[in-house]
Amino acid sequence: MKGNIYVIAGPSGVGKGTVLKRVFQLDDNLSLSISATTRSPRVGEIDGVNYYFVTRERFDQIVAEDGFLEYAEYVGNRYGTPLKPVLDKAAEGFDVILEIEVQGCMQVMDKLPEAKGIFILPPSIEALEKRLRGRESEPDDVIRKRLDTAKIELGHVNKFDYFVVNDTIENAANQIVNIIKSNR
Amino acid sequence: MKGNIYVIAGPSGVGKGTVLKRVFQLDDNLSLSISATTRSPRVGEIDGVNYYFVTRERFDQIVAEDGFLEYAEYVGNRYGTPLKPVLDKAAEGFDVILEIEVQGCMQVMDKLPEAKGIFILPPSIEALEKRLRGRESEPDDVIRKRLDTAKIELGHVNKFDYFVVNDTIENAANQIVNIIKSNR
Repeated sequence: MKGNIYVIAGPSGVGKGTVLKRVFQLDDNLSLSISATTRSPRVGEIDGVNYYFVTRERFDQIVAEDGFLEYAEYVGNRYGTPLKPVLDKAAEGFDVILEIEVQGCMQVMDKLPEAKGIFILPPSIEALEKRLRGRESEPDDVIRKRLDTAKIELGHVNKFDYFVVNDTIENAANQIVNIIKSNR
Repeated sequence: MKGNIYVIAGPSGVGKGTVLKRVFQLDDNLSLSISATTRSPRVGEIDGVNYYFVTRERFDQIVAEDGFLEYAEYVGNRYGTPLKPVLDKAAEGFDVILEIEVQGCMQVMDKLPEAKGIFILPPSIEALEKRLRGRESEPDDVIRKRLDTAKIELGHVNKFDYFVVNDTIENAANQIVNIIKSNR
């Protein structure tokens, strides 16, 4: 049976990565999509595991073939989500998880309308601010800017299909697993 | 000690009323704000309990005195949330709950910046649609329109302070009670 494709997003600082790590521990029929990038591998990074490391020429070729679900440039390097491995894994029967920035989600949902969107919210703005502040000790105006961005991202919640509050990692992960199981 | 003021909102069909009913059963230090209206009382409705029933002249006078947190006209009648009883109840030590339409919340938060906003989300768009559909058997285009409105309302989530998903009434009510208790 064909698997489903999920786009999982949330504002910066909501704890997506930690929640998803737990989701993958709880459910073993999942496949995390791997991004392609033109940046060089860092020590320990493995091609096809952390990223598909590709040349700029190859990246542009995939763009030309309309082979990315979404892509963007960040500090001089390009990052994209290749469509083919996502479809392949879904065809194999895995439920495929795309962890994508809120902005990129709109592109993905346009190109892949069958994908289901799960949006992770913080329990409160205060909790989100604490998380953004807790990461590093950065100036107040930097934190303020990040919080403003996060609030704009929160406003995109209505483009998603499912809503999960990350009050505790365990609760949020269980809710996501329940959503995934309910669609099998 | 002075009580806090909460604005509780969510998209139409999210089940606000049912959740709040349970919240009031779980916590006895709460006061629900009462709206004023120019419409006539229906059988069984009591002045000062269901609504403050006022004449149009009296309503206009409160408007002129800037005495409403928010007000609107609906099918020829006016409805508003009077500020004074809210402040009085808070001064007595009650936490005051304002159940207000999403649009009205912006007005309230402007006038009463110390009010805390709690936004109730559905677990999914599908669940919301089911609820909107379940109420009455209405034509598809009416349901579609309501769902579109509800989605627009969802987009206002980022103006609120707390986020609660109404997956079950009990969970949602408990989370709201926890938020209220954490601020006491």
